[in-house]
Amino acid sequence: MQDSKPRGRVTIPTDIDVIPQTKELLARWGADAIRDCDGTDFPQELKDTGAKVYATYYTTRKDNAWAKAHPEEVQQCYIMTAFYTADEGPLSIPLMKGISPELMQPNTRDDITRWWEVVDRTTGQPIPAAAWCYDESTGCVIIDKPAPYHEYTVSFLAYLIWDPVHMYNAVVNDWKDFEHQITFDVRQPKTHQYTMERLRKFIETHPYVNVIRYTTFFHQFTLMFDELKREKYVDWYGYSASVSPYILQQFEEEVGYKFRPEFIIDQGYYNNQYRVPSKEYKDFQAFQRREVAKLVREMTDITHEYGKEAMMFLGDHWIGTEPFMPEFQQAGVDAVVGSVGNGSTLRLISDIKGVKYTEGRFLPYFFPDTFHEGGDPVREAKENWVTARRAILRSPIDRIGYGGYLKLACEFPEFLDYVESVCNEFRELYGNIKGTTPYCVKTVAVLNCWGKMRAWGCHMVHHALYQKQNYSYAGVIEALSGAPFDVKFISFDDIKADPHVLDSIDVLINVGDGDTAHTGGKVWEDPEIAAAVKGFVYRGGGLIGVGEPGGHQYQGRYLQLAAPLGVEKETGFTLNYDKYNWEEHRDHFILADCPDHDVDFGEGKKSIYALEGTEILIQRDKEVQMAAHDYGQGRGVYISGLPYSFINNRVLYRAILWAAHAEDQLHTWFSTNCNAEVHAYVKNGKYCVVNNTYEPQDTTVYRGDGSSFDLHLDANEIRWYEI
Amino acid sequence: MQDSKPRGRVTIPTDIDVIPQTKELLARWGADAIRDCDGTDFPQELKDTGAKVYATYYTTRKDNAWAKAHPEEVQQCYIMTAFYTADEGPLSIPLMKGISPELMQPNTRDDITRWWEVVDRTTGQPIPAAAWCYDESTGCVIIDKPAPYHEYTVSFLAYLIWDPVHMYNAVVNDWKDFEHQITFDVRQPKTHQYTMERLRKFIETHPYVNVIRYTTFFHQFTLMFDELKREKYVDWYGYSASVSPYILQQFEEEVGYKFRPEFIIDQGYYNNQYRVPSKEYKDFQAFQRREVAKLVREMTDITHEYGKEAMMFLGDHWIGTEPFMPEFQQAGVDAVVGSVGNGSTLRLISDIKGVKYTEGRFLPYFFPDTFHEGGDPVREAKENWVTARRAILRSPIDRIGYGGYLKLACEFPEFLDYVESVCNEFRELYGNIKGTTPYCVKTVAVLNCWGKMRAWGCHMVHHALYQKQNYSYAGVIEALSGAPFDVKFISFDDIKADPHVLDSIDVLINVGDGDTAHTGGKVWEDPEIAAAVKGFVYRGGGLIGVGEPGGHQYQGRYLQLAAPLGVEKETGFTLNYDKYNWEEHRDHFILADCPDHDVDFGEGKKSIYALEGTEILIQRDKEVQMAAHDYGQGRGVYISGLPYSFINNRVLYRAILWAAHAEDQLHTWFSTNCNAEVHAYVKNGKYCVVNNTYEPQDTTVYRGDGSSFDLHLDANEIRWYEI
Ligand SMILES: [Mg+2]
Ligand SMILES: [Mg+2]
Ligand SMILES: [Mg+2]
Repeated sequence: MQDSKPRGRVTIPTDIDVIPQTKELLARWGADAIRDCDGTDFPQELKDTGAKVYATYYTTRKDNAWAKAHPEEVQQCYIMTAFYTADEGPLSIPLMKGISPELMQPNTRDDITRWWEVVDRTTGQPIPAAAWCYDESTGCVIIDKPAPYHEYTVSFLAYLIWDPVHMYNAVVNDWKDFEHQITFDVRQPKTHQYTMERLRKFIETHPYVNVIRYTTFFHQFTLMFDELKREKYVDWYGYSASVSPYILQQFEEEVGYKFRPEFIIDQGYYNNQYRVPSKEYKDFQAFQRREVAKLVREMTDITHEYGKEAMMFLGDHWIGTEPFMPEFQQAGVDAVVGSVGNGSTLRLISDIKGVKYTEGRFLPYFFPDTFHEGGDPVREAKENWVTARRAILRSPIDRIGYGGYLKLACEFPEFLDYVESVCNEFRELYGNIKGTTPYCVKTVAVLNCWGKMRAWGCHMVHHALYQKQNYSYAGVIEALSGAPFDVKFISFDDIKADPHVLDSIDVLINVGDGDTAHTGGKVWEDPEIAAAVKGFVYRGGGLIGVGEPGGHQYQGRYLQLAAPLGVEKETGFTLNYDKYNWEEHRDHFILADCPDHDVDFGEGKKSIYALEGTEILIQRDKEVQMAAHDYGQGRGVYISGLPYSFINNRVLYRAILWAAHAEDQLHTWFSTNCNAEVHAYVKNGKYCVVNNTYEPQDTTVYRGDGSSFDLHLDANEIRWYEI
Repeated sequence: MQDSKPRGRVTIPTDIDVIPQTKELLARWGADAIRDCDGTDFPQELKDTGAKVYATYYTTRKDNAWAKAHPEEVQQCYIMTAFYTADEGPLSIPLMKGISPELMQPNTRDDITRWWEVVDRTTGQPIPAAAWCYDESTGCVIIDKPAPYHEYTVSFLAYLIWDPVHMYNAVVNDWKDFEHQITFDVRQPKTHQYTMERLRKFIETHPYVNVIRYTTFFHQFTLMFDELKREKYVDWYGYSASVSPYILQQFEEEVGYKFRPEFIIDQGYYNNQYRVPSKEYKDFQAFQRREVAKLVREMTDITHEYGKEAMMFLGDHWIGTEPFMPEFQQAGVDAVVGSVGNGSTLRLISDIKGVKYTEGRFLPYFFPDTFHEGGDPVREAKENWVTARRAILRSPIDRIGYGGYLKLACEFPEFLDYVESVCNEFRELYGNIKGTTPYCVKTVAVLNCWGKMRAWGCHMVHHALYQKQNYSYAGVIEALSGAPFDVKFISFDDIKADPHVLDSIDVLINVGDGDTAHTGGKVWEDPEIAAAVKGFVYRGGGLIGVGEPGGHQYQGRYLQLAAPLGVEKETGFTLNYDKYNWEEHRDHFILADCPDHDVDFGEGKKSIYALEGTEILIQRDKEVQMAAHDYGQGRGVYISGLPYSFINNRVLYRAILWAAHAEDQLHTWFSTNCNAEVHAYVKNGKYCVVNNTYEPQDTTVYRGDGSSFDLHLDANEIRWYEI
């Protein structure tokens, strides 16, 4: 009887102690794949279900025998010490202060005069190797004659003697009596060869496995802990732990210039997402992507040789595999799986091209933090599903799944019911959407220094954590993840390489703080880029700037996009100019759906004022929060900040339409109530109206031809129609 | 009977219609000087009073016959147009858009290819003169083949065909049927010669005058109006209207490099107080100061030749006469008079050295805006006096005075009484303070790019107007103006010239926004300066940073004073670092007198966090507002903002003591109630306790030996004691 119901597209976890429950849920949820249980034989009963079996495989750890036998091929990380001020005498800098000695160990095996760097941060110059020495007994670098009252740092290489993710799991779960897993470097020659043999052995000894779930490939994103084992530094996109003299010598040979630790250290900022990336760092990333893809390909080839699928977990040791970059297409990966927290993280997975399928692991994980007496997993699951669904409706993942201990979930029958409904709803919408592109009102491009390399995730320090410094970036990206636009991510380098990259764009978005990679910083001093962007708007394009768009002090402007946006930031430099343009225009098209024609800008930005001829939509205490401006044939919209909310989705939607001169397209596949959205799949002859909230909603729905009807939607409801 | 009362030190205005009242008030207020009535003969009756007579003298205007006969010697101003974006075709830039044509007229008399500059603001480069032309008929500069979508500006010279102050007065007072006074340039040869003869003639025809009150000398501070005659730009310290080809050629010869309009234009920022000054601008200012002083000297010599005194009004055409700079000492000025708005503006006058006396013109002016039915001039006078008195008690002016129409004041008998009491109180405190330096607890130096050139006034865009961008600078300076410290103003150049300038300082203060002249900006990239300041603290000095002290992105820090202050600003670049230091220490010495151990920081600064080892005093929502930090032998205190208030005076006072390791000196000449202050004049054997508020206050007063007594003070009361 199960056969009559739609099945498939769902993965569930299992364990040796929940075999009957696994079988039952396979049936109830229509699941067709199982994640194997770590370290045990796989039960025949589950093999007999016909479900696909995923096996998690760790390429760089869980083999301490090998790691200990080859300490020179343990992975390494570049680290910078804190700043130390020199007094009149010698200066002693303890390398490992602030870093867990269980996590890392300075690499003195390789030539420290070549691979370490002592930098006078007051002059900005490295000091000669002869001017410092390393005292292994105290763990200090000693500068004998520093310049008094200059500040110094030491950049050094350290071995990752405990895999950071293993350490994190051990600390969080308070594990006792276990061995620290050491991270070995598959890139290095002996480990490279060994690893391929080890992979073959794994596959050969796990014949029931259909999918090798690589977690992940070779280089861990930057993750450090301090002496108290607290997280010290985390960058989900960070390359600091992807280095070794072996790799760096290859890099030097390829690029033809000398490597400096500073390329990775970056003044202690480690080239994080906010930093305008240097040429050298971009070169290094490109080199790593190519090398990683080659090595991934060796593993996927082996996987395929055995008739298995290669699935990549989007996380942990994923550095160099950025799936939106061309190198990834050469890696032979069959599938990508990742954790879904919201619309942005969903599209981080679902927008990946060149794989057979993508899979989203949904929340909550079946862990005791949620699945305990008094816990409310249904609420968490609902929030997760409804939030992600907006994005699925724009760009569906191919599969959904859950993780954790199935036993825990089984104690919450309402949760099992809710997940059943989610699985059915997912399969229904997947069927309706399948193979088509939803109707897109406009093509929108987010412009920053990272472009597609960090599409959908450029604001994420560690997955989707909220940060004061990027709530607007997060808000805009989350809004776009479920909005009826064709969304692109382009970098300033893309424009530099070919200004025609802007030709297909209706509206450009630049969002973030000044002098960061999000808004461009010194990139705006390049006349080609400045003229390309301004020309795009001047000739009729739309521009939306949020926060400090183009923020970089240069040639009489702080906001380098002041001309198209019609606003500027008062940094003090223009305080002597009297400012007379303060009148608000709350009746503007963009504000028409906002209660009281007002907007929650979050923290917003201070000290923004409007230039002459700019229409201020909202100002507070003579600080402009929103403004609209004509520039040549084009239009600019300034927004001081945009936290994510349904009403702010609508604000951004209307801002995009206005910027694109497309006010007349408002009533096309449109819900008057901003808590509901309409998505049309014209090729499939379907459209849906979806209630994104947990309360019933009433709305008027506009079809593609402008005709409309009133509709009542239950909480969370999605309603499908034929066109 | 008047003779038995103390007399003198007071100047009053007069008029032909108030001769008896003038005589009466001379007696009642003990005044000993009269400002003459403009344009009339001086009445014999007033000559007979024996009071000194001041005559206002305008060096650069009120002689249109001369100005019109010598249009080439009319004063000039450098102006920059707005930014204009080029499309595909030629670009036309209207020079005078946004500028009143009654105020200025482009100078096409001199070679525009040499003195004007068309700048491509997208490349930052001037374009060749051959690439543009000026169309006199349309008033436009035309660029035939601009780079598409680049932005352009035109810098040009314009004649000041209406004196800006005359224009301001005419517009504000809605004058009808009068001639615009043209500003002629005393620096130029014909006008120079003519002016000296004109001055002699004036003195010869006004034999009863004792004091020539120069208003002022040659160059008006920058003041522009738009087509609607609204103020467009104002900078009380601005040099933009002190230029002409004649002057600039001399400048070129002196400095030995080619002049560029950009030296004055400064991207349209006109080298305002927030701009880190360029070498060329500083060179130009120094050149002007020398040349102006020479020419002032010619006038003061003539003045002295006739047995008169030369008084300088600190305002209007005062550019080049900065009284705290050494050139002023050569100018032969006998006295300086200026308007007093608060403590800072008082010390702007009273701290001037090398003159026989200083005089403060107090508020309110006897003008109809205050002296009308229902007006309350006593309240304004009280506020003005009590506010200024704090500063007078630290550094007295030698005389006080009033301005305006005496007739109006005479209709407010209570006002006449109040001023009488002020005159008496002033003479008493002047007598008690005379010739001595009040007890100073510590020597404090404000460090910025301008140093003593802009002592006490560096935050003033136009006198003492409040600005969001500088309320902390204004707050600190106002607090210091009446605080028991020896206050110095030093520039980074002073440190560069001689690091020992810091040797005599106990506590350095750096206050303002990042990348401004107030905090230093790129100056911090100079290792000598960075090391001198850090060394000063490290060896035991105190440092107080307010706002974004040393704010400039360089070598791993935004706050270049992060090391001594123990705080840093989160610009996004360190978001990946976990921050664990958030514990508050509200019981700190600095906060001991604050209600609830809390402080009003005003707007404060966002995103400040503490480094390890720093003691946070106050944080709000994980943004540090105040912190204390040990650095070597010294101490740093960070404050996010400091609006002026009596309690914030105390916060700053305690912060200075703490930074100087002088907590034990707290109870020295001290009032426990922060609304009252104690000032000691040890050499004169006097001290006073002063109530700065309009309510009675109770306090405990500590003497210099630590002994104390309780005291009740009436509203505004000042109580004098013998030591
Ligand atoms: Mg997972
Ligand atoms: Mg005056
Ligand atoms: Mg301490």
